[in-house]
Amino acid sequence: MSDLAGFEFVDLPDSWFDDREARFEPLAVQLRAVNDLVIRSEVDDAAAAAALAHLQAAADLLAGDAPQAPGAAAGVRFNASGRASNWGNAAVGRRNAVAPPLVTEHGEDGVVRARLTLGAAYEGPPGHVHGGVSALLLDHLMGETASQFRRFTATGTLTLRYVGPLPLGEVELSGRIVAEEGRKIRVHATISGGRGVAVEADGLFIVPRGEPAVPGEVR
Amino acid sequence: MSDLAGFEFVDLPDSWFDDREARFEPLAVQLRAVNDLVIRSEVDDAAAAAALAHLQAAADLLAGDAPQAPGAAAGVRFNASGRASNWGNAAVGRRNAVAPPLVTEHGEDGVVRARLTLGAAYEGPPGHVHGGVSALLLDHLMGETASQFRRFTATGTLTLRYVGPLPLGEVELSGRIVAEEGRKIRVHATISGGRGVAVEADGLFIVPRGEPAVPGEVR
Repeated sequence: MSDLAGFEFVDLPDSWFDDREARFEPLAVQLRAVNDLVIRSEVDDAAAAAALAHLQAAADLLAGDAPQAPGAAAGVRFNASGRASNWGNAAVGRRNAVAPPLVTEHGEDGVVRARLTLGAAYEGPPGHVHGGVSALLLDHLMGETASQFRRFTATGTLTLRYVGPLPLGEVELSGRIVAEEGRKIRVHATISGGRGVAVEADGLFIVPRGEPAVPGEVR
Repeated sequence: MSDLAGFEFVDLPDSWFDDREARFEPLAVQLRAVNDLVIRSEVDDAAAAAALAHLQAAADLLAGDAPQAPGAAAGVRFNASGRASNWGNAAVGRRNAVAPPLVTEHGEDGVVRARLTLGAAYEGPPGHVHGGVSALLLDHLMGETASQFRRFTATGTLTLRYVGPLPLGEVELSGRIVAEEGRKIRVHATISGGRGVAVEADGLFIVPRGEPAVPGEVR
C-alpha cells in the first residue's frame, strides 16, 4: 500500500470500533453544540471564564493517555470486515466536531446522496453556507462516488460553478459517475438548499497505478 | 444592500468588538484542542463520560442568554470604522472551532498570503490534509484576493487541480489577481506544504450589479 494511501490493517474485532464510537461520538456531538454557542453567546466574562475552565477540565481528562502529540495525524485503521476508523475525517468524521458530519447513502443506482443541516459554524455570507464548505462537502461526496468504497481514488481536478445562494439550514447533495475510462472517472454532483441548486460540480478522479482496492473512505 | 450580502451596520464602538473577541476567542482556541483530543483519545468510558459532563456544563453556561436557536445564523455586523463580527465564518472565524482559523495577510503588491498549521481535525487521506479542506481555504483566500476588502464579490467558478500530496502540518496559501475586466475578476492561487505545491486554483469572481462596497469579509 502506498505512502499516500497510508491505511493500516489491524486484526481487531468490529466491537473494538463499536466501543470507541459509542464512547467518543457523544463528545463530538456535544462539542458541535458548544461551538455553536461560542460563536453566538452573549454571556458575561464570568460565565465565559467558567465555561473555559470546564473545557480545560475536559481536555485534561481526555489527554490521559493521548497516543500522539497535539495536531498529529489520526490515521485510518481498518479490519478484515471493512470497518474503518476514519473518525477524524474533516467531512465525515464522527469523532471530529469540524465535520458536520456528512453521512452519505450509496444508492443501488450508483448515485450517492446526503442530506444534512448546516448552522452558524458553516456560515460565510451572512445567513448562507460558506462557498468553501460547499466545496469541501462536494469534494468528499464526489470522491466517494468515484471510489464506491471499492477502489482507491484521488481527486485530479474539481470544477465548481456557483449558480445560486445556499441559505443555512437543510442542504442536499447528490453525485453520480458520468464517464469512466481506464483509470479516469468523471463525476457530476450538486449541492442544493432552500433556494434550489447552489453549486454544480464536475470532477475528474484518478485510480493511481498499482493502488490496491481499500475499504473505507479515502478522501 | 442586497439580501445575499446581509451585513448589518451597527453604531457600536471598536471596544464592543474587542471585548467580545477577548471573551470568546479563548473558548474557540480551547475547543480546537478538545476536538483534537476527542478524535484520538484512548481514555476509558469513565473518563470520557466525565469529559462529556464538563462539555455539557460549558454549554449550559454559554447558553445563558443565547440570542438565537441552535444552528441559527450568526450574521455579520460591522461598524463605521470597518470592524466586523465575522467570528463564525467557517474559514476565518475566531470564535468558530470549525475554522483553523485562516489568518490572511494582504501585501502591498495585492498578493494575499496565509500560513497555518493543520492537524488531525483537517485530515482526509491518512496523514494528509483533506482535499476539500484545501478547497475551503483556497475559496476563502481567493475571495479575499478578489474583494481586497473594498468591494463585494461572489464566487462564480472555481477550478482546482490537485497536483501533489499535502501532508498535515504547516501549509501556505498565496493568491493574486491575474485579470480584471468590468465586474469579472480572475484569481490564481496555490496551497503548498511539506512536499511542495499541492493544489493550483483558478477562480472567477463577480461583483454583483448594484452591490455597494462593504467592509469585512464576504465569502
